Amino acid sequence: MQRTEHHASFGGRQEVWQHASTSTGTDMKVGVYLPPAALKGEQCPVLYWLSGLTCTEQNFITKAGAQQFAAEHNLILVAPDTSPRGEGVANDDAYDLGQGAGFYLNATQAPWAPHFRMEDYVVQELPALIEQHFPASAARGIFGHSMGGHGALTLALRHPGKYKSVSAFSPIVAPSQVPWGQKALKAYRGDDPAAWKQHDTVALIAGATERLPLLVDQGDADEFLAEHLRPELLQAACDKAGHPLTLRMQPGYDHSYYFIASFMADHLAHHARALRPER
Amino acid sequence: MQRTEHHASFGGRQEVWQHASTSTGTDMKVGVYLPPAALKGEQCPVLYWLSGLTCTEQNFITKAGAQQFAAEHNLILVAPDTSPRGEGVANDDAYDLGQGAGFYLNATQAPWAPHFRMEDYVVQELPALIEQHFPASAARGIFGHSMGGHGALTLALRHPGKYKSVSAFSPIVAPSQVPWGQKALKAYRGDDPAAWKQHDTVALIAGATERLPLLVDQGDADEFLAEHLRPELLQAACDKAGHPLTLRMQPGYDHSYYFIASFMADHLAHHARALRPER
Repeated sequence: MQRTEHHASFGGRQEVWQHASTSTGTDMKVGVYLPPAALKGEQCPVLYWLSGLTCTEQNFITKAGAQQFAAEHNLILVAPDTSPRGEGVANDDAYDLGQGAGFYLNATQAPWAPHFRMEDYVVQELPALIEQHFPASAARGIFGHSMGGHGALTLALRHPGKYKSVSAFSPIVAPSQVPWGQKALKAYRGDDPAAWKQHDTVALIAGATERLPLLVDQGDADEFLAEHLRPELLQAACDKAGHPLTLRMQPGYDHSYYFIASFMADHLAHHARALRPER
Repeated sequence: MQRTEHHASFGGRQEVWQHASTSTGTDMKVGVYLPPAALKGEQCPVLYWLSGLTCTEQNFITKAGAQQFAAEHNLILVAPDTSPRGEGVANDDAYDLGQGAGFYLNATQAPWAPHFRMEDYVVQELPALIEQHFPASAARGIFGHSMGGHGALTLALRHPGKYKSVSAFSPIVAPSQVPWGQKALKAYRGDDPAAWKQHDTVALIAGATERLPLLVDQGDADEFLAEHLRPELLQAACDKAGHPLTLRMQPGYDHSYYFIASFMADHLAHHARALRPER
């Protein structure tokens, strides 16, 4: 692992690392915020952030204002890029497919299958790397925005026991039923409705074996709300399954990082309650 | 004035406006954060932010994390672009001269004089516009970063009574004595040492008629510290003149917005004490 950036931030340090990923077969970049306790060598829980379409590892670390609260709760924040990138990696001219749009799954279809293995990367390779190189405990939380909210919810549901806490901002909750998700699932996983449901939060909730409480914030002025996000489908699925969900519709808020920053304190507190129960 | 962006943020609203400026003769963009009280129509004090070299109105509004504290203190935040821009406006290939590098003064030299009139714009035109179009009181504060820290300090010193509070992050305090400043002052104001001193904080402190207390934060790992910033010259000038200065050297911090965000709460509290003395 090679450090490419480091900046003092709220008594801790925001770093960016680059490494050759065995999952994606590419160099991957990842933002790592080390809170004050981690700089002193204390083992800290790790909270993973998954970004949305078109983002890199930079969006969250520069715009979300999370370091302030990670410092307060002494959580390590890890924010990877949203897909493999580079020459030799398949791509598409659209913003919602290919590089910048990995959808946090392992692709099975050409031309995506060789490199687009973001589920393996986020769930297996990255935590192993973080727990080896930083003063990180094995207590993990996961959250994200939009496509990354989809990633956080589906990965937590697909890997019971891996994460102690989960939350999302404006997540794509039912990719099988909305245009962004249908396009990506068809391209990456093929024309197989059963394969799609393995990566669909609303479908996964029905079979969830672990009752991890979900915190979801959604702006009601979000330009993608009615077509791509549809939180009412998540509410209905959780109601039916008896899955604990706190869905907060936030009046006037849109899909931007201005929205994310506004409720970051609440999300960090939600994760800290699960990741640092001793406090 | 035309609104080009608006986003709910911390119970208030982050907006971007564009308008034809009579000072610069160009269209200017400006970020305006309206805190919750302003959205209810209450008159609020206005805190002006001046950005550094290469910045537009976007850097501060997306990266500084100031909205959270502006909402808490109910201050309007106004963050203009750093220079005139566009076709027909003089420019230079260097990052530290021309568009993106207005230095918050009125240029007297060719080819800059026609449009580079940022002092008039920031001190006269913009406050008049803000106080006309928004629920803004006449209580004004000013702060900024690097070239914008220079702008905040010099404009407050040059216009006694205009601002009730001032602060800066990593300001260029002695442009007459450092390469960034010498290059800009020579280009914009000509080869006249007397003209330079009118835009040099260290030189202005000696003749200050108003004892506005200065709050300055400076990272000691700032890559521009020794060559361009030299806060020790400000400390010496303030000591000599008996001008109140709180200069805080922040260990490990660099020149980035990660540094700015880390101490934003303190700066907003500093301005709120002067701008809302009733609280």
